[in-house]
Amino acid sequence: MTFEEFKLKIQTPYNDENCPIIKTLELLSGKWTTRVIYELERNEKFRFGELKRALPTITNTMLSNTLKLLEEKNIVIRTQFDEIPLRVEYSLSETGKSMLKIYYEIALWGDKFLK
Amino acid sequence: MTFEEFKLKIQTPYNDENCPIIKTLELLSGKWTTRVIYELERNEKFRFGELKRALPTITNTMLSNTLKLLEEKNIVIRTQFDEIPLRVEYSLSETGKSMLKIYYEIALWGDKFLK
Repeated sequence: MTFEEFKLKIQTPYNDENCPIIKTLELLSGKWTTRVIYELERNEKFRFGELKRALPTITNTMLSNTLKLLEEKNIVIRTQFDEIPLRVEYSLSETGKSMLKIYYEIALWGDKFLK
Repeated sequence: MTFEEFKLKIQTPYNDENCPIIKTLELLSGKWTTRVIYELERNEKFRFGELKRALPTITNTMLSNTLKLLEEKNIVIRTQFDEIPLRVEYSLSETGKSMLKIYYEIALWGDKFLK
């Protein structure tokens, strides 16, 4: 779908349940969702504590819930290493990594309009 | 900034306050913000009641607050016509219209991964 085709397509009313944009916006709608994905786009992998330090105002519960949701949606991969103490790492799936293009457009927009 | 330059740039840690992505994510973080902008991308202008019908589960207060915030951020333009009864129309500024590229990338991602 080209950008021109997209512009025509969204002018046609369609059922929200089938709209990939609305479904994606709902998926990304949590307070911390887009921030957590963005941190994982910037770094290949994170341990819980490292991710928390990257997002200083997030609480443990909020970070834990956000990661759990993103894992259910196959955006985040949780890898557990059977060491003592237990080591857990979070990284993006291919699905998650491919959101980088969305962040690129956000960056271009922000660069231009939020100065 | 090309996509390749962007990929390099985000690997460098930088201050959140200066990051156009984080500033944009914060701007878009309200529960209804991205949905209201998207409806206005799809239609040139909306009256309050029309916009509310397009977003059936939004309350008057939430819609009113979201529009006010977007007006303050120069994304939405509120035009008042001095008629009786008073007529008010909402549309996107050029800044708001240029967010369409972000929605395009969201649509491409959603098309591919949310089937």
